[in-house]
Amino acid sequence: MIDYASTVTVAEYLGERLRQAGVSHLFGVPGDFNLNLLDGLAEVPGLRWAGSPNELGAGYAADAYARSRGIAALITTYGVGELSAINAVAGSAAEDAPVLHIVGSPRTGTVEAGALVHHTLADGDFGHFQRAYAEISATTTVLTADRAGDQIDAAVTAVRRTRKPGYLSVPQDLALHRIPAAPLREPLTMASDPGALEAFTRAVRATLAGARRPALIVGQLAARYGLGARITELAGGLPMVTQLAAKGVIDEGTPGYLGDYAGTMLDPVPTALVDRADVVVHLGTVMTAELTGFFTARPLDDRTVWTSATAAGVGEQRFENVLFPDAVEAVAQVLAERGAAGSAETRPVSGSPLAAGGSALSPMEADGPLSEADGPLSEADGPLSEADGPLSEADGPQGEGGGALTQAGLWRALQEWLPPHTALVADTGTAYWGALSLRLPADTVFVGQPIWNSIGWALPAVLGQGLAEPDRRPVLVIGDGAAQMTIQELGTIAAHGLRPVILLLNNRGYTIERALQSPQAVYNDVTPWNWRAMVAALTGPESDYHHAGTPTELDKALREAAHHPDRLAFIEVQLDAYDTPPLLHRLAERAMAAAKGTPAQEPPQGSA
Amino acid sequence: MIDYASTVTVAEYLGERLRQAGVSHLFGVPGDFNLNLLDGLAEVPGLRWAGSPNELGAGYAADAYARSRGIAALITTYGVGELSAINAVAGSAAEDAPVLHIVGSPRTGTVEAGALVHHTLADGDFGHFQRAYAEISATTTVLTADRAGDQIDAAVTAVRRTRKPGYLSVPQDLALHRIPAAPLREPLTMASDPGALEAFTRAVRATLAGARRPALIVGQLAARYGLGARITELAGGLPMVTQLAAKGVIDEGTPGYLGDYAGTMLDPVPTALVDRADVVVHLGTVMTAELTGFFTARPLDDRTVWTSATAAGVGEQRFENVLFPDAVEAVAQVLAERGAAGSAETRPVSGSPLAAGGSALSPMEADGPLSEADGPLSEADGPLSEADGPLSEADGPQGEGGGALTQAGLWRALQEWLPPHTALVADTGTAYWGALSLRLPADTVFVGQPIWNSIGWALPAVLGQGLAEPDRRPVLVIGDGAAQMTIQELGTIAAHGLRPVILLLNNRGYTIERALQSPQAVYNDVTPWNWRAMVAALTGPESDYHHAGTPTELDKALREAAHHPDRLAFIEVQLDAYDTPPLLHRLAERAMAAAKGTPAQEPPQGSA
Repeated sequence: MIDYASTVTVAEYLGERLRQAGVSHLFGVPGDFNLNLLDGLAEVPGLRWAGSPNELGAGYAADAYARSRGIAALITTYGVGELSAINAVAGSAAEDAPVLHIVGSPRTGTVEAGALVHHTLADGDFGHFQRAYAEISATTTVLTADRAGDQIDAAVTAVRRTRKPGYLSVPQDLALHRIPAAPLREPLTMASDPGALEAFTRAVRATLAGARRPALIVGQLAARYGLGARITELAGGLPMVTQLAAKGVIDEGTPGYLGDYAGTMLDPVPTALVDRADVVVHLGTVMTAELTGFFTARPLDDRTVWTSATAAGVGEQRFENVLFPDAVEAVAQVLAERGAAGSAETRPVSGSPLAAGGSALSPMEADGPLSEADGPLSEADGPLSEADGPLSEADGPQGEGGGALTQAGLWRALQEWLPPHTALVADTGTAYWGALSLRLPADTVFVGQPIWNSIGWALPAVLGQGLAEPDRRPVLVIGDGAAQMTIQELGTIAAHGLRPVILLLNNRGYTIERALQSPQAVYNDVTPWNWRAMVAALTGPESDYHHAGTPTELDKALREAAHHPDRLAFIEVQLDAYDTPPLLHRLAERAMAAAKGTPAQEPPQGSA
Repeated sequence: MIDYASTVTVAEYLGERLRQAGVSHLFGVPGDFNLNLLDGLAEVPGLRWAGSPNELGAGYAADAYARSRGIAALITTYGVGELSAINAVAGSAAEDAPVLHIVGSPRTGTVEAGALVHHTLADGDFGHFQRAYAEISATTTVLTADRAGDQIDAAVTAVRRTRKPGYLSVPQDLALHRIPAAPLREPLTMASDPGALEAFTRAVRATLAGARRPALIVGQLAARYGLGARITELAGGLPMVTQLAAKGVIDEGTPGYLGDYAGTMLDPVPTALVDRADVVVHLGTVMTAELTGFFTARPLDDRTVWTSATAAGVGEQRFENVLFPDAVEAVAQVLAERGAAGSAETRPVSGSPLAAGGSALSPMEADGPLSEADGPLSEADGPLSEADGPLSEADGPQGEGGGALTQAGLWRALQEWLPPHTALVADTGTAYWGALSLRLPADTVFVGQPIWNSIGWALPAVLGQGLAEPDRRPVLVIGDGAAQMTIQELGTIAAHGLRPVILLLNNRGYTIERALQSPQAVYNDVTPWNWRAMVAALTGPESDYHHAGTPTELDKALREAAHHPDRLAFIEVQLDAYDTPPLLHRLAERAMAAAKGTPAQEPPQGSA
């Protein structure tokens, strides 16, 4: 128990603020400049150390934890440690994962003297790494003795507000310095600017007034704030699509939900919905190349409502200090007013258009018939024909359980097997583009990294996701090239008692790059590893290794994994080096067209 | 063959410049923004791709290669790749390892448009990572179509001149852009400023005139330039010591060579030599805490000649653009003049004072008798008594081949076994502080990282060192916590046909931290791995795993490793979690004293 009338160490103060914000695990690696900090944090009840073999893995784990918990703490040491994590933290910046990166740094006196100590460039300048971090962080702070409490409060709040990483440097001599405990009595709170929120609400109301065919696009911030259910409720059956970065946020059986939207790259149905909507409401989207089908998504205009972590607006109208959850509630309020007014335009959709197949457009047709002027919606509209649907009969021969596995066969098997209440974690590359094609069972969390795209991220992400939500079994899909990047975290995952199902897609290298360019280039081949031995090296007796070279072997391995939730299952899936999931073909075509200088190459900047 | 009258691609131009400078291997990891670059570089005869599982490993490998070859090339992709390598490259900055980091970046048009593409923070700012790299690089450049050749020449030259890393960003659309080949006809050269060099020479001459007891301190730049033999020659038997960062640069049997110098932390003999010298000549030293015995080394004054990569001077006199090899030759010239003048003061030493034990001070006594005024040189002068010498009888019981291995026993066995013509690579931690105590056999290269101190560096360093000098078998000593950081490179090492002897010191965690603070803290324990299985996972049949839990087992394993130079030998050495090499005790005492606020805590800045 904290005596609020007394003092606590800086480390305890920080630990208590983290705990109040939802942290119960600390990720990181010890180093001599952070040992005081770690010793001090060890005194805080409710915080558990989850150390990693290296900082990149710790950073990736923190990233996934932050997505689920709303904040994560990553602890490294000055120089060597913090820089090893910077790719992970930059990824957290790109993907809106609120990680507070806490760096144990040299003593205040050492820094003031400009002393040449280890873990520095031996040039007396202790600011290099903080300045590097300023490039990717919402805030960077070096604690001082007299302001430490306020600085910690500001850093934690900045990370939670912006959903971006923060950088907090704790000098070795301040970690156990004592400061007043009194502020800890009140947990930190955040609020939007009331005037700005009210102005945004009015703007939304004005924009939606008279709208006959509004549509919602749900983006990654909805996932970060855990607002999928709330958005489903406020939509009240209005047509709704998700960006790929928000896959799984809206239960795929939800009335009005039409699937994933990425410009003209994916299914024509969501594309048509968005193109023909008279108002589009973006809820936490990011308009990057891959998420917009290489800038073929509908551009933002004055009929677009948009929302980010700390601002919201309509078209070019921008209201600062409107926090995302408040912006969502503002939209909810306006939609509720429309509903209460009995507006014909917002009549909810009944039934699932996706489940009904060809009836997907019925909600829009009900709202207002598609006239010829709206443009024909023929099969030719979109690139996706039945024949290249990844899960269709045409993908590969059925019933050849003894033949070689194909990407198509893999994803079909996973589709049939994937249990509800899981966390599907997909690494960048063929794993991600394959997993995107899956229909997700109920209560399934999808965890990917479509903006930063750092291969190897997903294995440590299983650690973070698994510790953040221990009741949800992680299912990881990852390529061999990616897994080689961060394999050491498999040991950490097992040591913490997590029991994921891991599908290692072994195609002997970087197949996504083979698909993009120079398929025969030797640089895309990785050194072959013995994955069975690797599992033995890193995990204990509560693990099973399976080799799946055929559909039959894969089915058997998946069944066994399901039957043994108390065991870690590692399934090595043998695939051809040049086989890719159908969706990746499409990505590669777009990417290659962009590289060849077609208009997609130099797109207008878009941002929401 | 290059047609100098024609054009080459930017990638070929760059590759040819690298080849001319001494590069024959390219380290790195492919990524979609560098595939054009890699395809172009593949056209350059004499360059071989040495890809790594991740960028940190590639960066560490490049670091070691650069130390040996005078330059190395590290190739990564924008954002995710370059940031994963930044800890390695910062280490190269700290340790004077000239690595040119070449980053494949998005197309020029994409950058100009501020397009939101993957591997960015999705904010349209493509300068973040270059600015982060500016903090740790001698130069950062983004190639442009019209100036690419000159920019490449400038970047390669900057890296070679400064012995610091450079950062060269190659936009995707420029890698295969064609530029004139003509400049490639003339390899790049570097020269000191003639006037500055002459002024420095005069200053050295004036300082050494009348000096009766000059001493040389050899630092890491001597190793980076491969000038150990030249310095031995120019010293002509003058008393000479090495910084720990230059261990092995001077053959330990050289007349006049008195061992390693780190203020009062190590042997009293080199300390007394330096303290009593009337002129001290620093050849490429760096005056960091650990290298100066926590700032107990003799400070620089107006009787100090110093030399860095691009400047040299005497005391506060500083001459810019004096390159290290030229500065060394200037010192050589002045010493030769003194020798030619038959100065009694520079009479060379005969015989090895180290080999003669107690006669170590004889050279100085010959030059001028040590008077009482110089201070007594008793056993009490230094902390090193016979009893705690790491290789003395007192370290541990002999003849107990069946008992548990101790750190003392390990280093004794290595001392007896270590063959000549090897590269001894020691990771940070107990491995480094143990290896420092070894007397090195003839023609042995010692590779360590005493300034940056990033654990895990040494395993990838074996890859770089092994490829740079294939005729020298690497012997690696590394802790388990360190090896867990970068274990994937073991596979790369084996795949490239290197056959090192690897001693994995398994003490179940970060023993150097246990020695420094909180020995029982759980954060210092690492997840136990099965190292036998790990070797099987990463290497092929041309590898041997040995377990050494006793002195007898260790001796046997070392003998077998020596008998099979064609096989990779991995020896897991079982050690107590709290056992440390004697030198580390000393380091820990100093470090703890510094942390407790004794004068060593806030030292004056010193730099040479």
